[in-house]
Amino acid sequence: MKNILLRDESALYYECGYSCDNAIYLQLGDEAWFFTDGRYGVEAREAVRGAEVVVAWDILAAAAKRLKRSKVKRCAYDPKEWDCYAFGRLQAAGDIRWKAEPDWSHRKRIIKRPEEIELLAKAARLGAKSFDKIAKAFSKEGFGEDERSLHFLAERILRKEGKRELSFDPIVAIGPNAAKPHALPTRRKLKKGDLLLVDAGIKYKRYCSDRTRTARVVKGFDFGTLQRFKSRKMQRAYDTVLKAHDKAIEKARSGMEARKVDALARDVIEKAGFGEYFVHSTGHGVGLDIHEMPYISSRSRTRIEDGMVFTVEPGIYLPGAFGIRIEDMVVMRHGRAEIL
Amino acid sequence: MKNILLRDESALYYECGYSCDNAIYLQLGDEAWFFTDGRYGVEAREAVRGAEVVVAWDILAAAAKRLKRSKVKRCAYDPKEWDCYAFGRLQAAGDIRWKAEPDWSHRKRIIKRPEEIELLAKAARLGAKSFDKIAKAFSKEGFGEDERSLHFLAERILRKEGKRELSFDPIVAIGPNAAKPHALPTRRKLKKGDLLLVDAGIKYKRYCSDRTRTARVVKGFDFGTLQRFKSRKMQRAYDTVLKAHDKAIEKARSGMEARKVDALARDVIEKAGFGEYFVHSTGHGVGLDIHEMPYISSRSRTRIEDGMVFTVEPGIYLPGAFGIRIEDMVVMRHGRAEIL
Repeated sequence: MKNILLRDESALYYECGYSCDNAIYLQLGDEAWFFTDGRYGVEAREAVRGAEVVVAWDILAAAAKRLKRSKVKRCAYDPKEWDCYAFGRLQAAGDIRWKAEPDWSHRKRIIKRPEEIELLAKAARLGAKSFDKIAKAFSKEGFGEDERSLHFLAERILRKEGKRELSFDPIVAIGPNAAKPHALPTRRKLKKGDLLLVDAGIKYKRYCSDRTRTARVVKGFDFGTLQRFKSRKMQRAYDTVLKAHDKAIEKARSGMEARKVDALARDVIEKAGFGEYFVHSTGHGVGLDIHEMPYISSRSRTRIEDGMVFTVEPGIYLPGAFGIRIEDMVVMRHGRAEIL
Repeated sequence: MKNILLRDESALYYECGYSCDNAIYLQLGDEAWFFTDGRYGVEAREAVRGAEVVVAWDILAAAAKRLKRSKVKRCAYDPKEWDCYAFGRLQAAGDIRWKAEPDWSHRKRIIKRPEEIELLAKAARLGAKSFDKIAKAFSKEGFGEDERSLHFLAERILRKEGKRELSFDPIVAIGPNAAKPHALPTRRKLKKGDLLLVDAGIKYKRYCSDRTRTARVVKGFDFGTLQRFKSRKMQRAYDTVLKAHDKAIEKARSGMEARKVDALARDVIEKAGFGEYFVHSTGHGVGLDIHEMPYISSRSRTRIEDGMVFTVEPGIYLPGAFGIRIEDMVVMRHGRAEIL
């Protein structure tokens, strides 16, 4: 057991099965405390496992007091979780040697437990179902609507009218707007035959899904990966992205460095002459957070292992013309990538 | 002109009329830079005023380089805006004396300019209109629906089906759930005669609105401040909150300390015997952020001045029974508080 101070909600949830937007988790050897304010006291006492719940108006002061009393000499923290102001107040608590451990919780969470993989699989399935519903809704009432309205309609479906949470703000982009990897919805209207990119995810018991499809929108279209575009260039770009996506999933192996998985997709796109238009990395881990380790980028030397869950999402973005991305979540199992 | 390093989106927007979710603003004497990544370069160059836009993949490295080149000796920053990790990377940039100035931008924004007050007034008017629409919608299709559905319906109306942004996640709470000042929507269903609390705000050109009403829900109800409850205790609590709200607005004066304004409302509630059930402060400033200075709390010695905009929102919360809150935004003008 080590001494660690955590603040991030996902980190807290992972440690003790509960979190809220004003809480601190402190573990010192075999003891642990969960500090929160009066608004969350009842819930916290019911749900927190393996830590003593301390309710305080000023949770920083309470944690500082606890640290002081414990006479602990060293403690680790994640500098990405703490703002300089809050951490400064804790530093003032006493003569502790603080050890900065960036991504402490993310590192711990990189290999998913079987029950986590089940929740992620369920999230992915529910997310995929929403895509089917979005296609039906857009096909029925989407033509002539602008991206902002389509975005809201997609959100309604993904959130099941408020009964579910999203893992991030969805992207709904038509034609040239899809060329911006992080497009915000505009007033551009959907016409028959338009290219449409949807990138969206939902949460199931706090675990995130993440999925992207690009489709040609006509009456009765779907978000399957078989798509036919009128423009030859668009079709060639689409087929290239799909090939890159399939190849990375097919050839990824436990034991590979993440940059090798990235290269599997990137090589396909580069060989097709679109290399400069694949402007981001191939994927990222998914779990309690939408962006976790491992990062599937050209620089990552992280060793891929069984139990990791990450996205494979190559893309080609031709500025002013169109953008294409196809994304699935995979889990590494028996040495290979399986789509969730 | 002073040297300042900013990261918060509202702070950036206030300085140069633009912000995005990955940017740094650095001002050194008469010169200023806006660092962002390639996704936002085009927009930033169009919109940023008074600063040179620098597009970089790693904006922290770019800002550090700029600092190094400038040979600046001192620079201020807001420790609440910076996480320890990012700030640590900038500290490594060179031998600069960093001065922590908590709430640097919030302090600067405490007095609103006339054009900001107009935007806040417009936001408040649009927010109030949405309350009328919510009452109509709930009256028509709300009975038998649970808080989660009502929350989503309210959100649809506030967001105008996706055409508008919210200033925070709205609160829609029935009866005893309203006793939790930060209630999350549950499966509790709305019945005729129920007490309903709605706390919600929208954004207009980035400026926030904030409003709370408590009503007895019957066919054709509205969110006016005249409400009739069956229970005498509820009515007495409601009348007390309304009196506290009205009194604070009527008697607030420029030149008073904020704690005096808080006391105007709190005294009414205490005198009625509900003092222990008013568990939060009377209000907070509103602007680009939903929570700004001045804080109208029992401890705040901030001097109220013309041009400040803040909420007045006393409440009484009887655990397990009901909660009541009435909230309006006011601007200090000619020494007095005017409801926006």
